[in-house]
Amino acid sequence: MSKLKISIAGGSGYTGGELLRLLMTHPQVEISQVTSERFKGKPVARLHPNLRKRSELKFSSLSELENCDVLFLCLPHKSSSKKINEFLGIAEKIIDLSGDFRLNNADDYKKWYGEEHPNEEFLGKFVYGIPELHREEMKNAKLISSAGCNATAVILGLYPLYKNKIIDIKKSVAEVKVGSSESGNESTPASHHPERAGCVRSFMPTGHRHTGEIIQELSFGEKIDFNFSATSIDMVRGVLATSHVFLNEDLDEKDIWKIYRKEYSGEPFIRIVKENDGIYRYPEPKLLAGSNYCDIGFEKDRNSNRVVVISAIDNLMKGAAGQAVQAFNIMNGFQETTSLEFTGLHPV
Amino acid sequence: MSKLKISIAGGSGYTGGELLRLLMTHPQVEISQVTSERFKGKPVARLHPNLRKRSELKFSSLSELENCDVLFLCLPHKSSSKKINEFLGIAEKIIDLSGDFRLNNADDYKKWYGEEHPNEEFLGKFVYGIPELHREEMKNAKLISSAGCNATAVILGLYPLYKNKIIDIKKSVAEVKVGSSESGNESTPASHHPERAGCVRSFMPTGHRHTGEIIQELSFGEKIDFNFSATSIDMVRGVLATSHVFLNEDLDEKDIWKIYRKEYSGEPFIRIVKENDGIYRYPEPKLLAGSNYCDIGFEKDRNSNRVVVISAIDNLMKGAAGQAVQAFNIMNGFQETTSLEFTGLHPV
Amino acid sequence: MSKLKISIAGGSGYTGGELLRLLMTHPQVEISQVTSERFKGKPVARLHPNLRKRSELKFSSLSELENCDVLFLCLPHKSSSKKINEFLGIAEKIIDLSGDFRLNNADDYKKWYGEEHPNEEFLGKFVYGIPELHREEMKNAKLISSAGCNATAVILGLYPLYKNKIIDIKKSVAEVKVGSSESGNESTPASHHPERAGCVRSFMPTGHRHTGEIIQELSFGEKIDFNFSATSIDMVRGVLATSHVFLNEDLDEKDIWKIYRKEYSGEPFIRIVKENDGIYRYPEPKLLAGSNYCDIGFEKDRNSNRVVVISAIDNLMKGAAGQAVQAFNIMNGFQETTSLEFTGLHPV
Amino acid sequence: MSKLKISIAGGSGYTGGELLRLLMTHPQVEISQVTSERFKGKPVARLHPNLRKRSELKFSSLSELENCDVLFLCLPHKSSSKKINEFLGIAEKIIDLSGDFRLNNADDYKKWYGEEHPNEEFLGKFVYGIPELHREEMKNAKLISSAGCNATAVILGLYPLYKNKIIDIKKSVAEVKVGSSESGNESTPASHHPERAGCVRSFMPTGHRHTGEIIQELSFGEKIDFNFSATSIDMVRGVLATSHVFLNEDLDEKDIWKIYRKEYSGEPFIRIVKENDGIYRYPEPKLLAGSNYCDIGFEKDRNSNRVVVISAIDNLMKGAAGQAVQAFNIMNGFQETTSLEFTGLHPV
Repeated sequence: MSKLKISIAGGSGYTGGELLRLLMTHPQVEISQVTSERFKGKPVARLHPNLRKRSELKFSSLSELENCDVLFLCLPHKSSSKKINEFLGIAEKIIDLSGDFRLNNADDYKKWYGEEHPNEEFLGKFVYGIPELHREEMKNAKLISSAGCNATAVILGLYPLYKNKIIDIKKSVAEVKVGSSESGNESTPASHHPERAGCVRSFMPTGHRHTGEIIQELSFGEKIDFNFSATSIDMVRGVLATSHVFLNEDLDEKDIWKIYRKEYSGEPFIRIVKENDGIYRYPEPKLLAGSNYCDIGFEKDRNSNRVVVISAIDNLMKGAAGQAVQAFNIMNGFQETTSLEFTGLHPV
Repeated sequence: MSKLKISIAGGSGYTGGELLRLLMTHPQVEISQVTSERFKGKPVARLHPNLRKRSELKFSSLSELENCDVLFLCLPHKSSSKKINEFLGIAEKIIDLSGDFRLNNADDYKKWYGEEHPNEEFLGKFVYGIPELHREEMKNAKLISSAGCNATAVILGLYPLYKNKIIDIKKSVAEVKVGSSESGNESTPASHHPERAGCVRSFMPTGHRHTGEIIQELSFGEKIDFNFSATSIDMVRGVLATSHVFLNEDLDEKDIWKIYRKEYSGEPFIRIVKENDGIYRYPEPKLLAGSNYCDIGFEKDRNSNRVVVISAIDNLMKGAAGQAVQAFNIMNGFQETTSLEFTGLHPV
Repeated sequence: MSKLKISIAGGSGYTGGELLRLLMTHPQVEISQVTSERFKGKPVARLHPNLRKRSELKFSSLSELENCDVLFLCLPHKSSSKKINEFLGIAEKIIDLSGDFRLNNADDYKKWYGEEHPNEEFLGKFVYGIPELHREEMKNAKLISSAGCNATAVILGLYPLYKNKIIDIKKSVAEVKVGSSESGNESTPASHHPERAGCVRSFMPTGHRHTGEIIQELSFGEKIDFNFSATSIDMVRGVLATSHVFLNEDLDEKDIWKIYRKEYSGEPFIRIVKENDGIYRYPEPKLLAGSNYCDIGFEKDRNSNRVVVISAIDNLMKGAAGQAVQAFNIMNGFQETTSLEFTGLHPV
Repeated sequence: MSKLKISIAGGSGYTGGELLRLLMTHPQVEISQVTSERFKGKPVARLHPNLRKRSELKFSSLSELENCDVLFLCLPHKSSSKKINEFLGIAEKIIDLSGDFRLNNADDYKKWYGEEHPNEEFLGKFVYGIPELHREEMKNAKLISSAGCNATAVILGLYPLYKNKIIDIKKSVAEVKVGSSESGNESTPASHHPERAGCVRSFMPTGHRHTGEIIQELSFGEKIDFNFSATSIDMVRGVLATSHVFLNEDLDEKDIWKIYRKEYSGEPFIRIVKENDGIYRYPEPKLLAGSNYCDIGFEKDRNSNRVVVISAIDNLMKGAAGQAVQAFNIMNGFQETTSLEFTGLHPV
């Protein structure tokens, strides 16, 4: 069988690097081009030193992009949306890893991004990129918009509870603890190591863009409220979402187990983690570095109707490149776990 | 003026070490004894290596304790409460740093500690040890119970809002991010560095004992609900509390500022931190290591009536030894900031 | 082709967990048993949480070990050497990951381990487990003793220079910076997170056992001196060796390049890392977590005949389980890189 | 007694911030001005958030500097040397914290800094700023050049051994492990948290400028060789120097103890740390954060004439601002430890 020809537009960043790592050993893929304006002509291993001796590829310029079967877009904010028509001339199938096409309507985009969308007729045409929610649509999709990393952690943790309508849709509060790789590979005063190391930094207590995605995906036809905050900690990779939701009926932990099992039992990348003893009783992102898992645990408060849901991912994998490859596999009829078999490390 | 003679029962742990560090340079204090059963006869600097060349003290046994003016108790859970009558034979004034006397009634104790209190007639006789809430009582107190570290961070962050009755008392959610020194100096499988490093560990999603203190101090005569969770991160010292509260009237950020200023403007150890730009726009515990400050910031959600309150302390200082020394200063009529002048470091 | 049946004696530790992770996806291997006395009957994923949903294996007892083709020993110090005859009744081929059989004679063992060897007739019968030095011997070996992690980093860094006799054999100094996983998974007061985090701890300035291995492998028939020290830093996985060697002839960096290339050009797991600019000009262990690479760089001092050699590995991979699997592949005629393809992550 | 009026030229960096922290509570000092071109008019607490509520000072411009008693220079490389004559018009006494005046002759400067000195007639007129070596000269000095942080750690560790001529002066090797604050507060690609976190980065294997200072201070009239390397680790503050020196006579550890005691017994900021058991047997920088101590330990290799000397400092304190204040105190006849009493924290 001939291999699919794929290219990556915007390959010098962290997400592009992860995509490259995953796809370069994918048995049904041939990587055609990886672009970077700043580093064109340079070996990709210069920017992604873990690929030394593993990839001989060099960066191309965006303007040199040739036709391919699937084009991955890892470009800065608004670059995908401005040039989407050009990109559609290069590949019929596109997976966009930016936030440009995640929201399905122009009003939501304006609310959360604070400006008009440059190509709003495309909003709603991309499948929102979480396979556990949109697998069937992905099978026939040509356009997929990869989900936000924080949104992925929160949505996957809460989806079974919202879908089954057992939650008070006005009261939920979620806080993510995130690593520094979320902000990409450009250095800033805030990312300077002496300032960023050891930090517990409430960088977005309110107004985080990913809130829009969370609301969109958890609404199920109703108007929900969602209280979201994000805090940076001294970690490079990983997201831990702690979500506080309030049951609208009387359920115990076994009932909740059943609901998670019903929704997720066949999922290759979801693990329910809830143990009575040991060190790792609940999900932790460090176990997931490099893997595509989303680990989910929960605890019912004995003093109230609160359920605390804990969900963990690697932001560059299940939160970006890994989930994009999972969607790519589904979209092209490949085994869903191909190139995503890495288990994660322990200890690490 | 002759110096007050103080002793520390249980001086080998982290809290005892901090007390020692603070009190050994206190101009109105003479440290009489510091006890440790396991290390009696050994220099205190063996356990507290930062005190090398600074303190020649050696540990005594508890049974050797002589009469003193003020006795600090840094003993394991339930040790203070079982022996409180003995300790009252040694000193008229006692500051207990354990959780034994924080709750004011036996039912609450049983609810949060899961067992009967060994000496419940003392519950309610200790002043709860947050000076910002109980300064006047402290001035005449003989018994003070130092507040829990997580409780201190949450209570100080929310006290002005609850006291002024602008909060929906049924909906608040608070999550603390805590360092490893909170659990004391005994090694366990979970504190083993390869397991604890890099962790984001939801160690107490529900049922944390400090919830009882928070409810007690924020109730103001009403029956409130409070949703509290605690997550360990890769940090040694520090607590950051992120509290989500919901206004029951229409206030903007300026109004909230005024409320904080009204309650805290004269407080020597409270700083309101809320900046429009820069790296440290909101409180961060790393700036507070070794200092007695509680830094508090807040942000009003433009999409809802939520206010996110961010409060940070050093768990061993404002969350334990520092706050105990602050209370000690008040109780004995000393300048409140004595021995607590350290600013904290930057960068660190 | 039928698969080789392998077992792991001592599978609850970090090295055993890594072996399991690598071998469970090895296409020519069937894992028969993994032992742990303390956890027998429990799922291996309890101790190795990264293997949740990936391995259904449960721990067996050592006494239940059945015959197998290759037995890996990951037992505590002196356990392998005491029971070696028993183990030879279980498998004809043994790969020992302890230090028991690394030194080739009884005097060296006594010098570095401070006691008599319990079965000294086996010393010298094990092939020392660094494939880059002993590949040919491994092809026909039945007994392989995996090399020490620190020794591996130093030896691989210096081997080309010693072999080519361009070094003053009396003057070399090497210092390794190591992570906490080197000490295994038992918690101790020194591994307690508040003490171990942020440490730069000179835990073995002189007298480290791995010195014996280094001298053995770098001697080439002469009597060499070697000055070795080890320092713990705040890292979980990884070793960086900084070795200072002194040329006995006038060579420039290009000459040294040639020597490294001559010795290592065909090696699948050695990368020479030396760049003029960029962030990763020299080897760094964090890029290697989970991979089997040894990255090696060097710099010639312009003011003297010193060459500083920098070599990095993942102590649990190229320093333990990974190198053992590499040796296993060679010993059994498999592709040498099988199950060792992971590139490592960036950033991490 | 009237207070000395001091100013700090270049006060927005980390060293300037530490100086400010120390001097603002110095009982014999009045801080006149702190300059920053970029932040003039802004409160100093904007850049040094630990000083919130503690200092009302605002940054001035360099051009606004008024006459003062002592001027501290914390300016970028070569700024002090170019403008030294201007500064001498502002203050009679100057303490320069840059590297510009550390070397005593123009040839050494050119060798280590790679260029001509702009005002070489001043070389040799500054007292090299380590009080333990130059206290008497400081008492009458008008010009002091604060020592390099890495140089300070190495020199203080080795000074007694070199001074007493018990060391082979051709063979010493020293490697420092350093934190990220050494490079100042400007962010760079290499200081970006995802790249800098978890690093063990051999950033200067040879050719480090501080080598010149080390040679200058340890030579004692002879021509010595010194092999120096520097490695960055995941730490913000702190230097640990591991120095390997070779005895030229037969001495045991007790003899070496005596030599250290002879040289350092009266020193307020030197502690000899060498214990047989416990966690902190040798110096560690984390215990020293914020303190002015240099902790020194050593171990004699039983298999050779090597002595490994371990010395630790806080690079911003004993390695910069703290040592400058110590020198300032000596220069002005104040108690040497004034404003430098902080013990450091444990745990941290």
